[in-house]
Amino acid sequence: MAYVDLNSDLGESFGQYKIGEDEEMMKIISSANVACGFHGGDPQVMHETLSQARANGVGVGAHPGFNDLWGFGRRRIVGDSPADIEKSLVYQIGAIQGMATSLDMRVTHYKIHGALSNMACEDEDLAMAAARAVKSVDQDLIFLVLPGSELEKVGEKLGLNVAREVFADRAYEDDGMLVSRKKDGAMIKDAAEAGRRMVRFIEDGAMQSINGKRIPVQIDSICVHGDSPTAVAMAKSVRNALIDAGIEIRPMHETMFPS
Amino acid sequence: MAYVDLNSDLGESFGQYKIGEDEEMMKIISSANVACGFHGGDPQVMHETLSQARANGVGVGAHPGFNDLWGFGRRRIVGDSPADIEKSLVYQIGAIQGMATSLDMRVTHYKIHGALSNMACEDEDLAMAAARAVKSVDQDLIFLVLPGSELEKVGEKLGLNVAREVFADRAYEDDGMLVSRKKDGAMIKDAAEAGRRMVRFIEDGAMQSINGKRIPVQIDSICVHGDSPTAVAMAKSVRNALIDAGIEIRPMHETMFPS
Amino acid sequence: MAYVDLNSDLGESFGQYKIGEDEEMMKIISSANVACGFHGGDPQVMHETLSQARANGVGVGAHPGFNDLWGFGRRRIVGDSPADIEKSLVYQIGAIQGMATSLDMRVTHYKIHGALSNMACEDEDLAMAAARAVKSVDQDLIFLVLPGSELEKVGEKLGLNVAREVFADRAYEDDGMLVSRKKDGAMIKDAAEAGRRMVRFIEDGAMQSINGKRIPVQIDSICVHGDSPTAVAMAKSVRNALIDAGIEIRPMHETMFPS
Amino acid sequence: MAYVDLNSDLGESFGQYKIGEDEEMMKIISSANVACGFHGGDPQVMHETLSQARANGVGVGAHPGFNDLWGFGRRRIVGDSPADIEKSLVYQIGAIQGMATSLDMRVTHYKIHGALSNMACEDEDLAMAAARAVKSVDQDLIFLVLPGSELEKVGEKLGLNVAREVFADRAYEDDGMLVSRKKDGAMIKDAAEAGRRMVRFIEDGAMQSINGKRIPVQIDSICVHGDSPTAVAMAKSVRNALIDAGIEIRPMHETMFPS
Repeated sequence: MAYVDLNSDLGESFGQYKIGEDEEMMKIISSANVACGFHGGDPQVMHETLSQARANGVGVGAHPGFNDLWGFGRRRIVGDSPADIEKSLVYQIGAIQGMATSLDMRVTHYKIHGALSNMACEDEDLAMAAARAVKSVDQDLIFLVLPGSELEKVGEKLGLNVAREVFADRAYEDDGMLVSRKKDGAMIKDAAEAGRRMVRFIEDGAMQSINGKRIPVQIDSICVHGDSPTAVAMAKSVRNALIDAGIEIRPMHETMFPS
Repeated sequence: MAYVDLNSDLGESFGQYKIGEDEEMMKIISSANVACGFHGGDPQVMHETLSQARANGVGVGAHPGFNDLWGFGRRRIVGDSPADIEKSLVYQIGAIQGMATSLDMRVTHYKIHGALSNMACEDEDLAMAAARAVKSVDQDLIFLVLPGSELEKVGEKLGLNVAREVFADRAYEDDGMLVSRKKDGAMIKDAAEAGRRMVRFIEDGAMQSINGKRIPVQIDSICVHGDSPTAVAMAKSVRNALIDAGIEIRPMHETMFPS
Repeated sequence: MAYVDLNSDLGESFGQYKIGEDEEMMKIISSANVACGFHGGDPQVMHETLSQARANGVGVGAHPGFNDLWGFGRRRIVGDSPADIEKSLVYQIGAIQGMATSLDMRVTHYKIHGALSNMACEDEDLAMAAARAVKSVDQDLIFLVLPGSELEKVGEKLGLNVAREVFADRAYEDDGMLVSRKKDGAMIKDAAEAGRRMVRFIEDGAMQSINGKRIPVQIDSICVHGDSPTAVAMAKSVRNALIDAGIEIRPMHETMFPS
Repeated sequence: MAYVDLNSDLGESFGQYKIGEDEEMMKIISSANVACGFHGGDPQVMHETLSQARANGVGVGAHPGFNDLWGFGRRRIVGDSPADIEKSLVYQIGAIQGMATSLDMRVTHYKIHGALSNMACEDEDLAMAAARAVKSVDQDLIFLVLPGSELEKVGEKLGLNVAREVFADRAYEDDGMLVSRKKDGAMIKDAAEAGRRMVRFIEDGAMQSINGKRIPVQIDSICVHGDSPTAVAMAKSVRNALIDAGIEIRPMHETMFPS
């Protein structure tokens, strides 16, 4: 029987500032990537997000990023050594593990955020910093990456539990990379089409590029967004399409380590 | 044989900003209270401080405070619920535990910082928040407190490993509380006197108040400061006086759990 | 002919975080208290808020607070001297004046925010810090205060252009102070009643206390909120009631300096 | 008679964190570039720095940078539009102008800091953002730039009062650009040599490149550093060499607008 995980970035609110449709998303997804207080989130929000995840049977992952609340972790910050970035990731992983422990929960995966992720996808040294951080704190955490990226390569090299994700709303180039948002057709905007597309990818064990090329890939998780009502609608559509096609939705750690 | 721990607040630098004579102090003390990135410290500084502690055989503790870099954790911030403060302490404990794990070390104690500590010494609800935070993340951590404070009471109540500290440079009232800095005689300024005083306290198993009253107390640790060359000189003087008197200086976890 | 100003706190968004119904409120009010980047707001948000104010013929004021984004300026931060608080207010006033100058606009009033305002209403030294800050940067700015507060007293003492505001949604004690939110009847929840009430206050030149006592006061401005759809509805109701009663709504500087 | 300005970056301390030998430097330089609270500095530090400048007859300039205290403004932050960067510069200029006004002083120049300066030296759009910011707030401020940079070009284009600076401790390429710190000979380490070199540049109206090439340039100001005792010694040496050679040291605004 086929199965896949549905993941989304949650817990990005801060103090009085609310962002994202977390409550809605918790009913749709099976794994939550929880912001760790650097690009978004704070201790109260982390506690609340973990609690919601537990109540909904959703697995939780560390989702650390640049220490850049103003830029929401989406600005490239250039000047830190990979060793320094590794330490800032260690800090964030530890922080969310502490929060999970206080709730008698466990963090089970790890996915880096935003601009730092984009940079590490392309740069082996940064990718290695990201992989080393998690290996040194908890090598059992699933390392969620883009297939074909430097993150995937170093994850394999260090013997991490690498999981691969596709984006429900993005088109892919022939080499498996995301089509730039600046190009036509980069975004899948139709919710029904996004759902059908994901079913096809899972059933075929391959992505289809924007040019129609077949790119074989092990898909462990599908990333959906919850930052707008439209995004939530697409996430729901993807979920329903998967279920209708008999594909089970399971938290990432059950996907990776089926019992 | 008599023994005691010497503790100090370290790792409070931030980015390009250096504060404290950490390198000197590491040779003097046996336990370091390491800032966790909220009132001081950052991931690089935490990593460096933990590494230095290990190299010097110094035990490490979490030293969390208010999220107030500008005020260095010394301003009272009123408005958060105890539950919210508990979460922000959990976050900081987790962060430093993650950093320690990445270095194959263990955090062994916990002492809250500055204004938050002052507030929790007087307020049972805040004290309980501080105690619950550590209990929920790692109940084995030694809970370092002021004798007679609310922190001590709730630590006992929750069954934590409570350690008691005296300040090398402060005078005490008859009820065991610190003499206000605004009063004459509040500060012990003479390094030699501070050393003699600490030896006397340990040998007698009691503090002596500013009025000469004997206050029996189990002294597990002595707090010294390293924020100026004068402070370092006093710390050295206390260390030497203890050793000269045949009192061994041991990390807090060895003091609390002698093998 | 009677007239009054309607003011509201706006421009409190930060980076990707949106808060408040600013666009709606700009059509309702005549003066905007614009956050200055400490408790909320950032340079982009300030620029946008000032631009919107100009487009809607709304006067703009500096609305500085504690440097506490996490607490949204609503936590009391105790430990800074009044002199230090004065400097942090000077900084924020200067920042928004710079932004206004860059847009060829002028800041015309000044109202301090949240916990700092609550503290300064009760504490003469803090009130003096708030008044000195504006006097030293631009003594022509209208100083918007609660009648009966320390802010009003020091504003008069320093010869500032003091304007007095009432809250559309709050009840008043016999001494003119706000009824604590903890008491029954503290909040006026009915939008129509709030509107009628404000008309009565203006026409009578007096507030009516929760016990029915008449408290004569010069009302220069009415404060309405825009932090929820309900708040916006109340603001609209107040505006409409005033207009229906023939009371003109004018920006504060036109209220204070009618030509 | 020949004259030149000596400028240095000051006021970069933050809260309890002290950095730089500001007190010493105030006796050496004629113009201070004062941090505006984003990459360093805070309202108290700004107030203190401006007061010291006045006491020492030193001119003051706005020295804004990226909002990056952790990185001290030395990390390149990529992702903001030039328009957004312009607004963050406007904010900082306004803030320091407000502080100066509260002290009855005037800001007379403007120099952008660190990574933002490095980026704007090379990128016309960013340079234009920097120039527009100052033009829109106070077009009379002297715009202090590196000769040959994009900043110089856009400053001329917008009709700003452009002043050109050389670094006392840096070597120059044949095209007038700084020799990369990675190359041998990039840094002038000998204080006496730095002094002689500056005298030669001023007397000749030209810099000499690392290869001995003569690069004619109008030198309005010399930048010296105060971030270490060695740096202070070099600054003193440069000052003394200039005076010994009969070159007068004058604040930048007197250099630019000699009466």
